[in-house]
Amino acid sequence: MSFIVYDKDCHFPIQNLPYGVFSTADNAQHRIGVAIGNKILDLSVIKDLFNGPILSECNHVFAEATLNSFMALGKPAWQEARVTLTKLLSTDDATLRDNASLRTQAFVDQDKATMHMPARIGDYTDFYSSCYHATNVGTMFRGKDNALQPNWKHLPVGYHGRASSVVISGTPIKRPCGQLKPEDKPPALGACKLMDFELEMAFFTGPGNKLGEPISIDKAQDHIFGCVIMNDWSARDIQKWEYVPLGPFLAKNFGTSISPWVVTMEALAPYTVANEPQDPKPLPYLFHEDDYNFDINLSVTLKGDGANKVVSNSNAKEQTSLGCMLELSWKGTREVDLGNGVTRKFLKDNDEVILSGYCQGDGFRVGFGECSGKVLPANPVP
Amino acid sequence: MSFIVYDKDCHFPIQNLPYGVFSTADNAQHRIGVAIGNKILDLSVIKDLFNGPILSECNHVFAEATLNSFMALGKPAWQEARVTLTKLLSTDDATLRDNASLRTQAFVDQDKATMHMPARIGDYTDFYSSCYHATNVGTMFRGKDNALQPNWKHLPVGYHGRASSVVISGTPIKRPCGQLKPEDKPPALGACKLMDFELEMAFFTGPGNKLGEPISIDKAQDHIFGCVIMNDWSARDIQKWEYVPLGPFLAKNFGTSISPWVVTMEALAPYTVANEPQDPKPLPYLFHEDDYNFDINLSVTLKGDGANKVVSNSNAKEQTSLGCMLELSWKGTREVDLGNGVTRKFLKDNDEVILSGYCQGDGFRVGFGECSGKVLPANPVP
Repeated sequence: MSFIVYDKDCHFPIQNLPYGVFSTADNAQHRIGVAIGNKILDLSVIKDLFNGPILSECNHVFAEATLNSFMALGKPAWQEARVTLTKLLSTDDATLRDNASLRTQAFVDQDKATMHMPARIGDYTDFYSSCYHATNVGTMFRGKDNALQPNWKHLPVGYHGRASSVVISGTPIKRPCGQLKPEDKPPALGACKLMDFELEMAFFTGPGNKLGEPISIDKAQDHIFGCVIMNDWSARDIQKWEYVPLGPFLAKNFGTSISPWVVTMEALAPYTVANEPQDPKPLPYLFHEDDYNFDINLSVTLKGDGANKVVSNSNAKEQTSLGCMLELSWKGTREVDLGNGVTRKFLKDNDEVILSGYCQGDGFRVGFGECSGKVLPANPVP
Repeated sequence: MSFIVYDKDCHFPIQNLPYGVFSTADNAQHRIGVAIGNKILDLSVIKDLFNGPILSECNHVFAEATLNSFMALGKPAWQEARVTLTKLLSTDDATLRDNASLRTQAFVDQDKATMHMPARIGDYTDFYSSCYHATNVGTMFRGKDNALQPNWKHLPVGYHGRASSVVISGTPIKRPCGQLKPEDKPPALGACKLMDFELEMAFFTGPGNKLGEPISIDKAQDHIFGCVIMNDWSARDIQKWEYVPLGPFLAKNFGTSISPWVVTMEALAPYTVANEPQDPKPLPYLFHEDDYNFDINLSVTLKGDGANKVVSNSNAKEQTSLGCMLELSWKGTREVDLGNGVTRKFLKDNDEVILSGYCQGDGFRVGFGECSGKVLPANPVP
């Protein structure tokens, strides 16, 4: 229980304590905060209260403008921070509860804060990790017989994305222009016609490794700090023409949105469920006995032309499928109903996509907040 | 002419003036320098001598530990810096020439310096830009009929690489382990057997653009600061199994080496030659009239088992082909002779690969120095 009051549907109870980076109208400095109820605890103000054995020596990480230095400290530091934060925010602890002056400095209303990227992203890797999604998209791009490639069940298929175009929730995304290749016509430059979203979970990793020294799978959990919800915006028509043989490129690097609050793996731990069965069993270097699959309710809301509808409900534990218009409209062969007579096959200009997710606890929710983005019209085609 | 003396084969005459980042035994601080002869001019020492209209206001960029801030200033600042450096190093200018004390502080012997990454790399994109190479590799991976994909002649085919594993020349590269799929056998974890190099040119880009605001091709030259030689180390057996459908991933992100001196586009300008003919002519958004192809002699030297041979000689203007063992040994079907009875199909442990390149001027060379790397044995396979 926290002395900060919130209701049972709030995404940010004391059981969550996600980290983010924010600024306010009266202080443009980007600073690290923790969401609690509808407030943010400004860690730059209370950094000296991190007095455990690890963080008392390096609480300067909480005065920085991103989470990078804190994440680089590693799991024991993350655990210590959570213990301190849980204590400081609990009903039983007087430090903040009874210090009105400190509370005034340390707490900021979420609706008065602007959220920023929680970390400098050095590299961003996107994995093709849902069997259903890979099968559906593969069927549409290459036909049923070549849908799931022979390697898919043996190794994590992934590609490097563009780190510099990962943006925070709320950033408008301009419809990209690119090369389109209509059937039986020569390629031409044009605005993307098949604009799409992709519902994904994204992970921030911590201390890292030296070049040439891999992290073994039994140590992987020590390097995963937390996660956010991600919208991997995709231009399906650009993608189809460009992606052979080196993979998606301009079709997916014009913008990638993430939710602003990094939910730690410690906060998610109570919602761990059995791993999905894998057949064939992965090679030993890719196999671990620990369950590392999470019961997270996910939704996609699509707003457009005055309509507003949840177009996809899924759960992270089930390898999310139908988390994009390509699947929902089955490559544009059927309309997705938004109500009020509004339908969509792909995204139109000014449509807004809102991804959200939460774990259901007993009387509370450990949530991710929202990852939203509005599609802006393309630049004029030159 | 410079008051610094060098011979006609030196890569770093006054016509070159490439930028790099170095440190010395007595000063561990990373700092920006310019190569001249066999010396480095330490720009952190002489930053106040940049007194032109742009740089006098922001010569702090030369006191930084990377080139990022300087590159972000844009082309007019780059041009002004070159004018200042050319003047300061010329025979006719007394500022450095006649100031023995300042010269002692400002010049460092290259053989007493350690070179570092010239910039923080935010993103690294690799283009499949040689038609010959793409055709050769395509033939080997997919057969002659599917060698060059239908999109190749219409758009720049590329992929995002891993920025964090781009390393400076001289960094040893450990042979990677990964998943291998021998014909008619199940996949297995093993050390790469088909370890390869790739000779490439790499470009550093400058001020950049806002999300959603593309740089038109007629403005592209204003954003290209300079270039280096790059070795895109490749694990061909890992690549072949993993790369469908999302492109190369672990087969190419275990290390990417670059030469330490960034040769500016201004230094390369006199070696511009006609663009390669393109058929079909690119779409207007990809076409420019200006020649932007460069006469750069390139070589690859392979050292191993006491042998030492130039295995590839080519020129950047001709879309380098045969710049990797995959092509030189034609997928391991023929031996490449290193002399002294030593042959190679792919790289062995402790082999060293040295890439080099230069433009031939009239009595001098504008060179890149070397991009070298030695292959270390793989970690034990768990």
